Amino acid sequence: MILVADNLTITNPIVEMAIQDMNPEPIQGLVSRCAAAGAEAIDINPGPLTRDPDRRMRFLVEAVQSAADLPILLDTANPAALKAGLETVRGKAIINGFSLEPAKLESILPLAGRYDADIIGYLLYPNSHVPTDEAERLNIAVELFGAFQQTGFPEDRLIIDPVIAPLMWENGHQQDMAILSVLRSLPDLLGFPVRTIAGVSNLITGPGPKDRKLLVEAAYLPMLAASGLTYGLLNVFHTESMRVARACNALMDPKIFTWEGLPDPISS
Amino acid sequence: MILVADNLTITNPIVEMAIQDMNPEPIQGLVSRCAAAGAEAIDINPGPLTRDPDRRMRFLVEAVQSAADLPILLDTANPAALKAGLETVRGKAIINGFSLEPAKLESILPLAGRYDADIIGYLLYPNSHVPTDEAERLNIAVELFGAFQQTGFPEDRLIIDPVIAPLMWENGHQQDMAILSVLRSLPDLLGFPVRTIAGVSNLITGPGPKDRKLLVEAAYLPMLAASGLTYGLLNVFHTESMRVARACNALMDPKIFTWEGLPDPISS
Repeated sequence: MILVADNLTITNPIVEMAIQDMNPEPIQGLVSRCAAAGAEAIDINPGPLTRDPDRRMRFLVEAVQSAADLPILLDTANPAALKAGLETVRGKAIINGFSLEPAKLESILPLAGRYDADIIGYLLYPNSHVPTDEAERLNIAVELFGAFQQTGFPEDRLIIDPVIAPLMWENGHQQDMAILSVLRSLPDLLGFPVRTIAGVSNLITGPGPKDRKLLVEAAYLPMLAASGLTYGLLNVFHTESMRVARACNALMDPKIFTWEGLPDPISS
Repeated sequence: MILVADNLTITNPIVEMAIQDMNPEPIQGLVSRCAAAGAEAIDINPGPLTRDPDRRMRFLVEAVQSAADLPILLDTANPAALKAGLETVRGKAIINGFSLEPAKLESILPLAGRYDADIIGYLLYPNSHVPTDEAERLNIAVELFGAFQQTGFPEDRLIIDPVIAPLMWENGHQQDMAILSVLRSLPDLLGFPVRTIAGVSNLITGPGPKDRKLLVEAAYLPMLAASGLTYGLLNVFHTESMRVARACNALMDPKIFTWEGLPDPISS
C-alpha cells in the first residue's frame, strides 16, 4: 500500500491562506513534514478554484515540487486547474478524478490521454450519489471501465476509488465492509490487476471522540491493505495509522520479513 | 471475532507453580484479570500433564470456573487430561484440538461425541508438519473435514485452526497472508459456515523488539477479522491488540455503529 498524504487540502487554513497570498513557504513546510511522516505521494486538493484556477494550481504544484520529489495527485473537479497542474507536474501525474458524471466524462477523462497521466475513477452514480451495496459498486465499476475503454487509453492508467463511506452514515460501516470485497473482486471482474485508491479519512469524518476515531482508522487500514488496496490516501500525521500501515506493508512484502523494516516506537 | 485468552498456559510460571502446588488462587487471579481485560473465553493449556493428568486438569477447570463464567477451551494432547476436563467443565467445552495425526484421530476426535463438545481441527499434516502454502492448507482442510464427517458428529461442532506461522520462519509472513485467503475460502470449500480459530501469539513468537511485535500483531488482527475469523486466541494483556480487535468488531457488527461501542483510550 502506497501512502498518499491528503493533508494538502483547502480545508486546512494553512493551505487556504498560502493560496490566497501565493506564498509557497507554508506549502513547502507542510509538504516537508508530510514527507518526513512517511508520505510517498502528495494529493493536491485546492477545492474548486473558482478564481484564477490556472495560476493557483501552477503555484501549488511548483511549491510542492520544490519541497519534495514525490508523485503528485491533482485533486480538483476544475478542468482548467487540472490542465495547468498537468502542464506543471514534472513526473507522471495522477488525475483525481473522474466518475460517470457526464461533465467529468467529457472534460476530465480526456485529459488523461492528452497529458499522458494516470486517472482515478470513483465508483459513484452519474448523479454523484454513492452506491449502497457491493453489487451496485461492482456494476458501476464495469460501467466506469467501459467508459474508460472507449477512450482507447491503456487500461493500466486507470485507478479505481470505491469511495469509503463515513461511519456517521446510518449504514456506513456496512458499506465499508462491502468495499473490502469490492477491492478483492475488481481484478477478476475487470480482467486485469487494476490499481485502487481509497480516501481513508472519509471513514472518520464528522463528530466523534478523536482517540476512538484514530483507533477505528488503525483497525480499518489493515483490512484495506489485506484486500489489496494499492494507494491509501490518509492524514499522514496520524502516527499510529502510519505505523500500522507500514507494518501491513512489511507483512505483505514478498521479500523476507525483518523487524528492522518496521517503524520505530512512538517516542512519548 | 470472539476474543479468547491464551494466557493460562504452562509456559507462564504463575500457572506452572499453581499446578505444582494445586493452589487455585493464582489461577483465579489470572482469570479475573483476563476477564477484566476483555477475554470472552479462556484457553486452558497445561502442557502434556504427564503426572496426574486427571487431577490436575480437574483442578485447573475448577479454578477457572470459580473465577469467571466464561467458555473454556481444553488445550492439551493428553486424552486422560481432556476427559477429566470435559467431565468438569459446566457448560459446553471446546476441545483444542485434533489433527490428521493418527493418534489424535483415534484418541481425541471421538471425545467430541462422547462429551458433546465442540472440537478444533488443525490444518497440519499427519506427521504434524505445517503445510507451506494455500493449496496445501485447503487440501488438508478437506481431508480433516472428511475425517470429522466419518464420526457422524454434526458439522457445526468443528472449528478449524489454520495454524499461524511465526514471522521468524523464513517465509512465515507469506504463509500468514495465505492464511487470510484460506479463512475466506473455507466456508465455500466445505459447504457450510465453518467456524475458525487462530493462535495470534504464534505470529510474534521468538526474538524481536517487543514494541514492533505488538505493532505487527495489531496490524494482523484486523486482517484476520476481515477474513472472517470466528475466534482470536491471543494474549489479552496486549492492550492495543485488544482495543484494535474490539474496533474491528464494531466495524463488522451488522448493528448500527456507535462510538460508544468502542473501548476507552488507554490511560497513560
